[in-house]
Amino acid sequence: MTGQDTTTRPAPIRLGMVGGGKDAFIGAVHRIASRIDGEFRLVAGALSSTPERARESGAALGLAPDRTYDDFKAMAIRENRIKDGIEAVAIVTPNHMHYPAAREFLKRGIHVICDKPMTASLPDARRLAKLAAESGALFVLTHNYTGYPMIRQAREMVASGILGNIRVVQAEYPQDWLTEAEESQDNKQAAWRTDPARSGAGGCIGDIGTHAFNLLSFVTGLEVETLSAELTAFVPGRPLDDNAQVMLRFAGGARGMLWSSQVAPGNENALRLRVYGDKGGLEWMQEDPNVLWFTPFGEPTRRITRNGAGAGEVAARVSRVPPGHPEGYLEGFANIYTEAARAIRAHQAGRPVPPEVVFPTAADGLLGVQFVDACVRSSQRNAAWVRLA
Amino acid sequence: MTGQDTTTRPAPIRLGMVGGGKDAFIGAVHRIASRIDGEFRLVAGALSSTPERARESGAALGLAPDRTYDDFKAMAIRENRIKDGIEAVAIVTPNHMHYPAAREFLKRGIHVICDKPMTASLPDARRLAKLAAESGALFVLTHNYTGYPMIRQAREMVASGILGNIRVVQAEYPQDWLTEAEESQDNKQAAWRTDPARSGAGGCIGDIGTHAFNLLSFVTGLEVETLSAELTAFVPGRPLDDNAQVMLRFAGGARGMLWSSQVAPGNENALRLRVYGDKGGLEWMQEDPNVLWFTPFGEPTRRITRNGAGAGEVAARVSRVPPGHPEGYLEGFANIYTEAARAIRAHQAGRPVPPEVVFPTAADGLLGVQFVDACVRSSQRNAAWVRLA
Amino acid sequence: MTGQDTTTRPAPIRLGMVGGGKDAFIGAVHRIASRIDGEFRLVAGALSSTPERARESGAALGLAPDRTYDDFKAMAIRENRIKDGIEAVAIVTPNHMHYPAAREFLKRGIHVICDKPMTASLPDARRLAKLAAESGALFVLTHNYTGYPMIRQAREMVASGILGNIRVVQAEYPQDWLTEAEESQDNKQAAWRTDPARSGAGGCIGDIGTHAFNLLSFVTGLEVETLSAELTAFVPGRPLDDNAQVMLRFAGGARGMLWSSQVAPGNENALRLRVYGDKGGLEWMQEDPNVLWFTPFGEPTRRITRNGAGAGEVAARVSRVPPGHPEGYLEGFANIYTEAARAIRAHQAGRPVPPEVVFPTAADGLLGVQFVDACVRSSQRNAAWVRLA
Amino acid sequence: MTGQDTTTRPAPIRLGMVGGGKDAFIGAVHRIASRIDGEFRLVAGALSSTPERARESGAALGLAPDRTYDDFKAMAIRENRIKDGIEAVAIVTPNHMHYPAAREFLKRGIHVICDKPMTASLPDARRLAKLAAESGALFVLTHNYTGYPMIRQAREMVASGILGNIRVVQAEYPQDWLTEAEESQDNKQAAWRTDPARSGAGGCIGDIGTHAFNLLSFVTGLEVETLSAELTAFVPGRPLDDNAQVMLRFAGGARGMLWSSQVAPGNENALRLRVYGDKGGLEWMQEDPNVLWFTPFGEPTRRITRNGAGAGEVAARVSRVPPGHPEGYLEGFANIYTEAARAIRAHQAGRPVPPEVVFPTAADGLLGVQFVDACVRSSQRNAAWVRLA
Repeated sequence: MTGQDTTTRPAPIRLGMVGGGKDAFIGAVHRIASRIDGEFRLVAGALSSTPERARESGAALGLAPDRTYDDFKAMAIRENRIKDGIEAVAIVTPNHMHYPAAREFLKRGIHVICDKPMTASLPDARRLAKLAAESGALFVLTHNYTGYPMIRQAREMVASGILGNIRVVQAEYPQDWLTEAEESQDNKQAAWRTDPARSGAGGCIGDIGTHAFNLLSFVTGLEVETLSAELTAFVPGRPLDDNAQVMLRFAGGARGMLWSSQVAPGNENALRLRVYGDKGGLEWMQEDPNVLWFTPFGEPTRRITRNGAGAGEVAARVSRVPPGHPEGYLEGFANIYTEAARAIRAHQAGRPVPPEVVFPTAADGLLGVQFVDACVRSSQRNAAWVRLA
Repeated sequence: MTGQDTTTRPAPIRLGMVGGGKDAFIGAVHRIASRIDGEFRLVAGALSSTPERARESGAALGLAPDRTYDDFKAMAIRENRIKDGIEAVAIVTPNHMHYPAAREFLKRGIHVICDKPMTASLPDARRLAKLAAESGALFVLTHNYTGYPMIRQAREMVASGILGNIRVVQAEYPQDWLTEAEESQDNKQAAWRTDPARSGAGGCIGDIGTHAFNLLSFVTGLEVETLSAELTAFVPGRPLDDNAQVMLRFAGGARGMLWSSQVAPGNENALRLRVYGDKGGLEWMQEDPNVLWFTPFGEPTRRITRNGAGAGEVAARVSRVPPGHPEGYLEGFANIYTEAARAIRAHQAGRPVPPEVVFPTAADGLLGVQFVDACVRSSQRNAAWVRLA
Repeated sequence: MTGQDTTTRPAPIRLGMVGGGKDAFIGAVHRIASRIDGEFRLVAGALSSTPERARESGAALGLAPDRTYDDFKAMAIRENRIKDGIEAVAIVTPNHMHYPAAREFLKRGIHVICDKPMTASLPDARRLAKLAAESGALFVLTHNYTGYPMIRQAREMVASGILGNIRVVQAEYPQDWLTEAEESQDNKQAAWRTDPARSGAGGCIGDIGTHAFNLLSFVTGLEVETLSAELTAFVPGRPLDDNAQVMLRFAGGARGMLWSSQVAPGNENALRLRVYGDKGGLEWMQEDPNVLWFTPFGEPTRRITRNGAGAGEVAARVSRVPPGHPEGYLEGFANIYTEAARAIRAHQAGRPVPPEVVFPTAADGLLGVQFVDACVRSSQRNAAWVRLA
Repeated sequence: MTGQDTTTRPAPIRLGMVGGGKDAFIGAVHRIASRIDGEFRLVAGALSSTPERARESGAALGLAPDRTYDDFKAMAIRENRIKDGIEAVAIVTPNHMHYPAAREFLKRGIHVICDKPMTASLPDARRLAKLAAESGALFVLTHNYTGYPMIRQAREMVASGILGNIRVVQAEYPQDWLTEAEESQDNKQAAWRTDPARSGAGGCIGDIGTHAFNLLSFVTGLEVETLSAELTAFVPGRPLDDNAQVMLRFAGGARGMLWSSQVAPGNENALRLRVYGDKGGLEWMQEDPNVLWFTPFGEPTRRITRNGAGAGEVAARVSRVPPGHPEGYLEGFANIYTEAARAIRAHQAGRPVPPEVVFPTAADGLLGVQFVDACVRSSQRNAAWVRLA
């Protein structure tokens, strides 16, 4: 038994889900991620805002009919009352529903695992962050890329000082699936992502730019002081940006660029992070996530692999298989769930969350929404330099 | 809901496990693979041949004490009798135990999911193949690389004739972890793999050469007529080969080479397959498994990605996430389990296994053991050309 | 005989050189480039501003003593008078000497092949562009990356409309050799490049940012309307930028980013260009220059190779060897020289330069210096949006 | 001035050429290679066995009419007599003419630079090796891949012991250009290469298999004791092999495989060498020749670049430009020419060839022809193990 499989295991945590019914991409991802390490069991769901679809989806997932709900509030109320009700809930709706859904569960002490961006608006983000801080329950945001072992490794290397003082950060997340007007082709995924009412004021910048921002923040620990953003909607008639270019000034003097796009043909999910200090550089790519390229200045570049020579315990503890056997997106996502499980079990036992257990929180979520908000504000003002609110 | 997550799901299949206790690598892999799509639930185990370790391991995995067994025969007998006993068993012991363990379950009608190579000896392989053929239960061999979506894609492309007549096949599987005498360093994994009593007459050729052989057979459908093998044990004192070089002559005139090594520094699990026909070529690498390189002769090479443009339904049905989000080793492994689940459910319903459900069988397992046997025989006779027995 | 070797060849063009003595990197490159296709013969030089070094360098290169000059003006005057004097001169000094040197030759009707950036200051660039326009002689600027066959291919593909309307351009040119204060370590190359008196107001942006800018302009044909630039000098005490981040707004609505750095450990000469239109995308990397990645939207990415399937005549005419045999930096550089030779021979014959002969001109050089000037102005004004002057 | 450009340079060596007229690929390569470092000047030629073509080709290359010969013997005789006759000759004919041509020049004391394989038959190879040994003139064989800087680096690393004892060598050289019957399409290159009368008994194995063999011998210094070869002609009607698979047993116990093919779609010139010892491994690919991958066992893989950190003087002395600026096939080829020039100049000065000057000799050529001969003999005897004659 190795990696995530090693611990003596109590019964799985009882999980509910809001959203994630038929045709939803991210709901399926959350369910698989919750299963991989055996730490959760899905037992209840309000899987769609359309009652019929909610019930069909519940049946398709093998949920008991009496735990398939038409709306999340009803689920929160009943699950909170029944014996063996859910201990945690995954919220995987479009962005604008994150806050109202999270509120119902947090205030009843049910832990929340919420998809990103945390909310569709900055006021909602502030409210939710406040609520999460005051709640007895945990709030976990699935900025899943922070679950990749080699991202953990990169973060530790930066923190160790092996790269020296960080000077330059280049982050990018190009995709191509919105190159044409998918939203007018009955593509549900495209429809809500390009709709301000459901996504918020950021399109591409909110959907994937936040991932790039969260990733660079997680790895470098740098704080953005001001940014200048150019958001563009290239596809005619699209009300939200599908391409975002951002310049970043960090506290301490480092400089960065961030590019996210959904109209860059040939890119699938080409999230990439490069970090340069005065002693060395790092490069990581999501599409080849088991490898971290490390160059100590003046020496040959090293190819460090997950669980391989040169990778440390911080990566190994979130790994499952030997080097050369690729772990992927779902394992990285599962690491967030498994960290959440560790935190929930500590919480249930009245113990503090152990320091090695790391996951994105409501504070990170607020920062992400502030980032989107700042990008939108900057872009509206001719890419002026603005602060994160 | 997409991919493997889509089906309306009955209760998970009740699974037992033989082997896979503490320090076992492949047991953990099987457990994760069995969980990913939610089709199995581990409820019983004979996890070690050492009783104390068996019990500790069972507890660590959350098994009920009365379903934690000291030996597999006792497990087979009791689970066959009790209500809600296991429906299937995963056998993940060293090779020499595969046959005796599988026998106990197959003869009681319990489906068997068995690690590779199928057995440590050719006589055992013949017995087990016969038993599996006569048994009412299913026998699934975890040649897991056949579960990778782009391998399914490659197989279909070869079958479609898009590559023309296959002329040349180059398969390789180099590793480096046995470059030094790990087996004398208290490494359990190395110890049994280099011990003829537990591994059989093939070392590297049995452990990973069989994977390369199985993969090329699966993708091309070609049948080896004769082979010439050079097996070498480079590490002093090692009784089994740690490097294997094989030339292959296929029925119909195609020619191939196969190289497997465990002493090639810089290689982790660099399984790679290249197939060339008179109309085109294919290349696939396990460490970058979401990509298939395809060259129609006279045209630029195409980079076909899992679920991306150019990949078909045969890959999509065993995929879970969009292109650019890497699926890895565990998802490929899980695909074998999920195909097994589909077959088991069809079997339980009295229906034939649907034609699109594909997994390695006892016949493939026998072929693999025949391949190892032929390589050993050839190597002992100065790399003479021999037939698969 | 293939490629650049095919033409019936008159005597080589007599070439002089200004700069490029001992320890000069780019002088040696120009000399090799001028020799590769046999179109030039170096016969005279003012190789250093230090007379002794000039003579030593001339001797080392096998120049006749009477054609080894202490200063470029003397060379221009005498070579213009003697029988069989030079027909063309290569100017490979630090930037600030380009204009005064070029002037002496242009006004005497000697063709000039000049390294980039064209000048160290914008007024000099304007004067030189005017001079070049009015001169009877040719002025060729060695933005050598435009000589790479696959860059020619990319340019033609964009022009053909196969990518549709260009929306996004991402250009970058990171290096790492100035990560530490090389200029204080007696490194002549570093010394002049970080000295405003010799380089001009741009450091990294002038040295390599101009290459990235020239490349994107050459390939896309897009015109920058305004830009916003953030120039930073990270190494303490360095008076010129060693990192430059630029946002670009093109006429017609396309958007771009350009990053150049000399403090990015792990990068040697990682010039890279990505171009995205509404019908497809392209990617090219200088360190792997024989490959162009092309994605028609909705189809698999193609790997197009120099002289290989999918590459056209525009690349073939500047190629020498078959696909799979890499041509590199020197061949790309040589292509500029050979295009220059074709233009010079046409000029000497009183014919117009054939339309397929393509090389960077003084107009491109002026644009490059305007780009550097605009970046410096923008950066001084808090990265304000500025026009190219 | 750096690299190959640095030496104080006497007048270029006067070079003649046999073969290499119109439509000949390798003649153009030799001419460019001879020019790159300015060490040779082509002044005479017998460029074709067809007189008219010989004269046209001479004119096209700017040779004086009286130094354009109809046959090589006439050229050898006259050039040996005239003042300022050629000092060296490049022989770039089809294989069967190498020996008769070389003989005429060697016996007149004119240095010979000869393309590979050295001859079309083993008896010729023996005669030529003897002649070269007895001649006062030098014989240089253009196994050009030994000229790549990173191959020099690899060779030195093996010799230094940093890889430990070499155990396994994997060499391959796949191409695809003969996938169809090009020889019947009026392709001169294909015609002579598939014609036993001009190529000798080996097809693919002689044309490119020898390169792979020479490369592995050069880098490892290992000596083949016996080999087993499977040569196949896949294209109907082709009298020579177009695919070759070879197993190698080296003195000292190392084992190897060699694969060369001209019918592997998707491969252009994918020469690749992998060397594994008990302390580390190396990998090099001709299509990315500036990089050497080095793994010290138990440490991360290093990416060593030409002239970059980790590469040594042995590579730097045959390099021209900084790391990250790719040098390619022609520069590697030029290195053979420039080593030849160094040897010729030492010879002319009555000095021994300096020990750092390295190039393939007639002894290497004989070994290569012995290798082809052994492969043919083995293949004819059912891939029996044979010794190099």
